[in-house]
Amino acid sequence: MISSSLDKYSHDETPGITPVFPVGVFEPKTTQEVQEVVHYALQNKLAITARGAGTGKAGGCVPSPNSLVIDFSKMNQILDISPENLIAKVQPGVVPADLRQAVEAKNLFYPPDPNSLAWCTLGGNIATNAAGPSALKYGSTRDYVLGLEVVLANGEIMRLGKQTVKGVAGYDLVSLICGSEGTLALVTEITVKLLPKPRNLQTALLSFDSNEKALEAVNQILALGYLPKTLEYMDAACMQGKPALIVEYDGPDDQMQELGAVNSQVAQDEKQRRAIWEHRRMMSERLKKRAKHKISEDIVVPRNQMLVFVHELEKLGVKHGVQTASFGHAGDGNLHAQILFDEDLEPQKTDEILRELFSLTIKLSGTISGEHGIGLAKKPYLHLEQSESLMALQKAIKQVWDPKNILNPGKIF
Amino acid sequence: MISSSLDKYSHDETPGITPVFPVGVFEPKTTQEVQEVVHYALQNKLAITARGAGTGKAGGCVPSPNSLVIDFSKMNQILDISPENLIAKVQPGVVPADLRQAVEAKNLFYPPDPNSLAWCTLGGNIATNAAGPSALKYGSTRDYVLGLEVVLANGEIMRLGKQTVKGVAGYDLVSLICGSEGTLALVTEITVKLLPKPRNLQTALLSFDSNEKALEAVNQILALGYLPKTLEYMDAACMQGKPALIVEYDGPDDQMQELGAVNSQVAQDEKQRRAIWEHRRMMSERLKKRAKHKISEDIVVPRNQMLVFVHELEKLGVKHGVQTASFGHAGDGNLHAQILFDEDLEPQKTDEILRELFSLTIKLSGTISGEHGIGLAKKPYLHLEQSESLMALQKAIKQVWDPKNILNPGKIF
Repeated sequence: MISSSLDKYSHDETPGITPVFPVGVFEPKTTQEVQEVVHYALQNKLAITARGAGTGKAGGCVPSPNSLVIDFSKMNQILDISPENLIAKVQPGVVPADLRQAVEAKNLFYPPDPNSLAWCTLGGNIATNAAGPSALKYGSTRDYVLGLEVVLANGEIMRLGKQTVKGVAGYDLVSLICGSEGTLALVTEITVKLLPKPRNLQTALLSFDSNEKALEAVNQILALGYLPKTLEYMDAACMQGKPALIVEYDGPDDQMQELGAVNSQVAQDEKQRRAIWEHRRMMSERLKKRAKHKISEDIVVPRNQMLVFVHELEKLGVKHGVQTASFGHAGDGNLHAQILFDEDLEPQKTDEILRELFSLTIKLSGTISGEHGIGLAKKPYLHLEQSESLMALQKAIKQVWDPKNILNPGKIF
Repeated sequence: MISSSLDKYSHDETPGITPVFPVGVFEPKTTQEVQEVVHYALQNKLAITARGAGTGKAGGCVPSPNSLVIDFSKMNQILDISPENLIAKVQPGVVPADLRQAVEAKNLFYPPDPNSLAWCTLGGNIATNAAGPSALKYGSTRDYVLGLEVVLANGEIMRLGKQTVKGVAGYDLVSLICGSEGTLALVTEITVKLLPKPRNLQTALLSFDSNEKALEAVNQILALGYLPKTLEYMDAACMQGKPALIVEYDGPDDQMQELGAVNSQVAQDEKQRRAIWEHRRMMSERLKKRAKHKISEDIVVPRNQMLVFVHELEKLGVKHGVQTASFGHAGDGNLHAQILFDEDLEPQKTDEILRELFSLTIKLSGTISGEHGIGLAKKPYLHLEQSESLMALQKAIKQVWDPKNILNPGKIF
């Protein structure tokens, strides 16, 4: 069954990931069809890797060896939007931008905004607990998932969580599924929490004389007691000029602050707002063109350690003869650390650089992944952050959900 | 060792709960002392029930048979408050009101506000994933817990979660601990997320001609696109007069709405604000005086089912010859359903009433506990909401954390 038509299923958007071809691909439209695939996999001793739009950046949906891929992109129905209950029910293949548009028509708001929101899927967002610029104010995908219908590794259909905004009956299995990268259960229906749509939006691009001043401004804004929707940072290397912050407020009393910026451009209309965001949205693509190779790692450090991190990252670049740059969700301390180089590096060399980068992150009380997950790409480094016991505990939990280890085996741990 | 000094450890605030005396009580001050208690319990084949201030309302901290109680109230140090990182580290015996006061002095805000916030503990809040009036806008305790230090059932000390606001490395074990009622691990240190302190507060008591109009107003406010901090409902029976809503906004642009109220009283100062909240805060105590027996159940139904619930609750009262009333967090659909009666009812009769109440709740897509937990009191009814398989899955997860079943055995399931 391996053919060129399976090409797109052999990888996600992780640079340099080794392609793995699935044994076959299913595109179910119903929960029952997902259940049938699980039964088929069990009968034929195959693994199952769930896939949304394949936009992951850590190899989470790269097929496990000897696996079937379940492509959830055809399960893309918005089943219900309830303005009174501020909830929506959707299938996992729904694209977040489509959900956002549908709820906005009812004056509601679904906040999570990963960069790929116009083409990724909610199921994939749950797999990685995806977040985006607005996580600073609004949190990540997990914060909006109230209930799930899942198909378990034994083929059983189960409802987890609740249909209400509150509820504490038993353990929080919904949060456990969010961020589990397809290793615990297959999500077939999602109940999400919605908010009233914010009635105001101010967006500004602030430019600074130095990376230091831009990052100091991040802390200043929060110290002033403001909680912007986004505080996106793009350093001097990224901007090929002055470092910048994109600050967006959606609270009507919020006052855009200057904060030592040498230039500030406040969007006067939607077109200007999009132009400002274009800097950020296309950052990754533009950086890719600047060097033959680009590694991007979405580390997080405590906000007051960002400056230390940025300085140490520069030193690391100098030491290894590679270019470095940083951009990302500075309000959360979540920086996308960039490593750019033209010559082909030995795998050991890349590994050494990443190991130093992650060790630095952890030394600063940070974490090696803010929103992309561990998947395959960061699996060799998880032990730098987590103890053997902690990983053993998680593997034992995986064993409870998936005793035959058929759901995305080999990922995370 | 059983003596009258153990009286207070034999129960929590659950009405009618059967007291159980512990074998002994420890009041550790450090994580190492907690670890020692676990080793002692393992050596002596004793169970351990963790206890905060004993303010639970479902029997969660009533000692398990043959158990030691760990009273965490002496581990009450606020270890660190970081305004730059918007986080605080605390011991589990810290009283939420004390944390709130300490962070407010730094212009920060810790939102969870259970009714008992002036005397309960954060460890207990984590055990039940406690919430309060402001959950409508700000969520529950779980939404603010970033990282935990825990002592496992084998005595091992482990750090779960992260010290940053974002992070997706591995499974979300922190959310799993939140709401697990002391059955998975012993929490010894908590890292919480803080917010900038809101700069405005408007509080109003709105009175209505009927319960229907008050509950309709709840939906109207949200339909208008406002997200108040609280929308607390007290029905006509509770108020012994006109039903009322306490509406509190902390967004500066929020406009207090009349919404069909026949009377509205907007607080002009802190004293008036407290007077308004006094209605709500003392509601439970005042209702207790009205009848010899009072049962309160913190059910949740989808917001648009509250009217149906309230009507059906009245019918249930008439059928069984008991008084009924409702108050609570109407914005969340979380009503504290009250059943009042003077004559001593047979346990079977009480059980019948509760069974009907919970079945109604579940029929309306609700849940049997919004914030108090399952503990002992609701354990006989969990199967009405959750399937055998779902409970078996949770028990298997409990088995992973606590293979010898020493942590608060017999609770929840």
